[in-house]
Order: sequence, then structure tokens, then C-alpha cells
Amino acid sequence: MRYALRGGKKLRGFLVLESAALHGIPPAQAIWPAAGIEAIHAYSLVHDDLPCMDDDDLRRGLPTVHRKWDDGTAVLVGDALQALGIELACHEAASTEPAVRADLALSLVRAAGAEGMVLGQALDMAAETAERQLTLDEITALQSGKTGALIVWAAEVGARMAQADITPLRRYAEALGLAFQIADDILDVEGDAAEVGKAVRKDAEAGKATFVSLLGLDEAKRRADALVTEACDALSSYGDEAETLKQAARFVIARRN
Amino acid sequence: MRYALRGGKKLRGFLVLESAALHGIPPAQAIWPAAGIEAIHAYSLVHDDLPCMDDDDLRRGLPTVHRKWDDGTAVLVGDALQALGIELACHEAASTEPAVRADLALSLVRAAGAEGMVLGQALDMAAETAERQLTLDEITALQSGKTGALIVWAAEVGARMAQADITPLRRYAEALGLAFQIADDILDVEGDAAEVGKAVRKDAEAGKATFVSLLGLDEAKRRADALVTEACDALSSYGDEAETLKQAARFVIARRN
Repeated sequence: MRYALRGGKKLRGFLVLESAALHGIPPAQAIWPAAGIEAIHAYSLVHDDLPCMDDDDLRRGLPTVHRKWDDGTAVLVGDALQALGIELACHEAASTEPAVRADLALSLVRAAGAEGMVLGQALDMAAETAERQLTLDEITALQSGKTGALIVWAAEVGARMAQADITPLRRYAEALGLAFQIADDILDVEGDAAEVGKAVRKDAEAGKATFVSLLGLDEAKRRADALVTEACDALSSYGDEAETLKQAARFVIARRN
Repeated sequence: MRYALRGGKKLRGFLVLESAALHGIPPAQAIWPAAGIEAIHAYSLVHDDLPCMDDDDLRRGLPTVHRKWDDGTAVLVGDALQALGIELACHEAASTEPAVRADLALSLVRAAGAEGMVLGQALDMAAETAERQLTLDEITALQSGKTGALIVWAAEVGARMAQADITPLRRYAEALGLAFQIADDILDVEGDAAEVGKAVRKDAEAGKATFVSLLGLDEAKRRADALVTEACDALSSYGDEAETLKQAARFVIARRN
């Protein structure tokens, strides 16, 4: 069931499957929350691309849902994907333990909702009309919701399914999520739209503060490197078993898309 | 904890609390899924009122979210309310039984998603651009998703929380949900915007087929009456204990808003 991580795509599903493998959870069970988190991520992209949000025409190299169909369809597609994502994550086939299924559902909606991903999106929207640029702390808080919350949930799933301590995977994922976002900001500056599969240099053109604009390119890269080391160190108690997750962390800052 | 049903407002939360009382579930537990279903219903209204959907300016006598704020905020508010609704419904305080919490989460997202409420919304959108008007069967299917699915879920909650047979409450709610929608169509023709709290006669002006346009006003009222009798009969096994739910069914077709 292991699959190669291609660019930033399917990072969340990958983290679910790998953290589950680390805890001896069969792939036939882990595939449910893995598919679930990808559906939740997809919902956030469909809504985020709407004209009243980021107004993007291109996603993963294809027209966005509202461009291909219309805005109303994109709203409903996102709504349905959120419900589907939760359904998959707490599906009967995900675990024979009702306590695990209830925990997966509850932790996922908390990560996705008004104290997690949606909060990050709202802070991002507010930043666009704010009179001053965000500080580094504010961008870090914004990203910890916008992209961090789902990445952390995905990495924790294995421990949740095994009813084990989630702390090491949480620490790993918090550092990874921040590194991932810094890498995204670097790609936005250095990347090529065709290769990245979405519009680039939008942030700079919009005058938005990013990790790169605040830290400079070199310091941003140094920061991302340090976070990857921190992420890998958090998994030391797993020993060699966690090598794939460590490689994924290193890959996240080396990726081209 | 029992509260009076005012108009069509809070019908879903009311059904949760009453079906829970019927099964001896303490209100302190039932209030969680009751609040949850109201949050889900609110999310559907906020998104449904968007310019790219029904484009409504007025809801419950107040400006709609996108009118008061903006479209992007309304998208995020709806997204957050969906997550919140599920969080409340399967909250640790809702039940000491993990199996009940997992069941509440899973059944709720199934009712809300692409095979339930969102499907109904999508059929409704498709009907607006269709070349012919919907038939009675098609409108019935549309409404069974759009408004029926959440009403059925709400009414079943008591039996789900008691891990009892959901069949009688399901039959009650299926008839009630259809009666409710027919009553809504009647209100759209006979009602007053100030009293109803939202725009009326939109369907007739848009040339949309409704239960009233297809059946005529008198037959629509007869059909609603028969459905209320069917709903009450479905609860016969509960005896006098179900009187409040039966009264609610009768009230649904007598309401003015």
C-alpha cells in the first residue's frame, strides 16, 4: 500500500498511511482516514479557489471546479467533500474499535473547523485587507491553522488508531507543517507555474507577507532545514522504523512542486 | 429542557430533544446533537443564501451573512458550521458510549452529504436550469434530500443514543419531512414576508415547480394532512409518550412561519 510521495500532492494521505504502518495498523484500515483527509484537503482547495476567496483558475494543472463548472457547484462540491472526508475517516471499516472511530471523527472536525483550518483561512482573508503586513508570529499562527492542522491530524492517525501516545508524531508534524509552508513560499518565488501546477508569484504580486518576504530567501531555507531536523528528531523513539517519515520531511523542502 | 416549537425554527433541535426524551436520554446529553443539527442546518442556510446559490438578502428577518459581511466570509462561516455541527453531535459529553458517538457522527455526515442534503441542493440547482419542470416524484426525491435527510436524522437521534430500533422514528420523520416541505410551499404562496422572515413567492416568480403548482393548493393541503396522520401512526408503539412529537407534526402544517 505504500506509495511514493510526488511533490506536495497527497502528503496528508501519505502521512496517515505511514504513521499507521509505524503502529502496525493494516493498510486496509488506514486507507479510510487516508482517503478521508485527502477529501477534506480537496474541499478546502475547491472553496479556497472560489472567486470570493483566492480566485484561482488553475489547480494541479487543471481548471478549478468553479472555472470548469460554476461557483454554486464549487460550493456544493466542497460541502459534500467535507462530509465525505469525515465519513471516510470514521467509516466502520477504519477500525473495529468504536472509540477509535469516534476519536478520528472528533479530532478531524476539530482540526478542520473554526479552531483549525477554517481559522487559518479566515486569518488569511483578514490579512489581505489589513492595513499592515503580518508579523512572523502572525504568519506562523495563520499557517499552523491553514495547512498545519490537517498535516498534524494526518500524522497522528497511526497513534490514534493504535490508541497510543500521539506526542512524538504531533511534534514531528508541527515542525513538518511549518517547513512545508516555508517551502511553499520558496516555491512561489523560485518555482515555475507549469511544474508547480498552480499560479506562482501571486503572493509577491499581492504584496502579501510570506516567510520569504520577512526572512529573505536564504534565512527561509535555513529555517526550513532546521525544522526538518526538528521533525526527524521528534521521531527518535521509533528508531529506524520511522525512516520513511523522516525521508518525507527531507523531501518536503527539496520538492519542485 | 423542553422548549416550545416556534414556527419552522429549530424544528431539528426540537426533534432531537423530544426523541431523546422518548428514550430516556438525559437532556444534558441530548443537547449536544440538538445543537449539532442546528449548526448543520445553519451552515446549509448560509451557503444556500449565497449569490451563486439562491441569492437571498433576508433570513429569519435579518440580513444574510454574505449581505452583512461578504461572500468569502459566508463560505467560511458555512464551512466552520458544518465542522462544528459534527463536533457537537459526537462530542464526548453526548454519550458515554463510544459506539453511540461514532454512530452519531457517521449517520450525520451521511445525512448531510452527497447522498443526503447536498444531493438535494444539487438537484434543486439543476432544476433551475433544466428545460422542463420537475415531476412530483422528482420534487419528492429532491426534498427528501434537501430538507428530509436532516429532519430524519434529528428524529432518529433518541433511538440511536439508546441503541434502540430507529424504524418508527424514521417513518415518522420521513412523513413529517415531506409534510413540512409541502407546508413550506403553501407558505410561499399564502405567507407574508414579514411574518415568514424570508422572501416569499420566489418559487412562483421563478416558474419553479412546487407541490402547490403541481397539485393545486387544496390537494397540497390534503396531502400534507394525510402525511401528518401517517407520521403520528408511525409512533403508535410509543403510546402516549409520543404525544409531543405528534403535536409537532400537526403544528408543522398549521404554522404561519
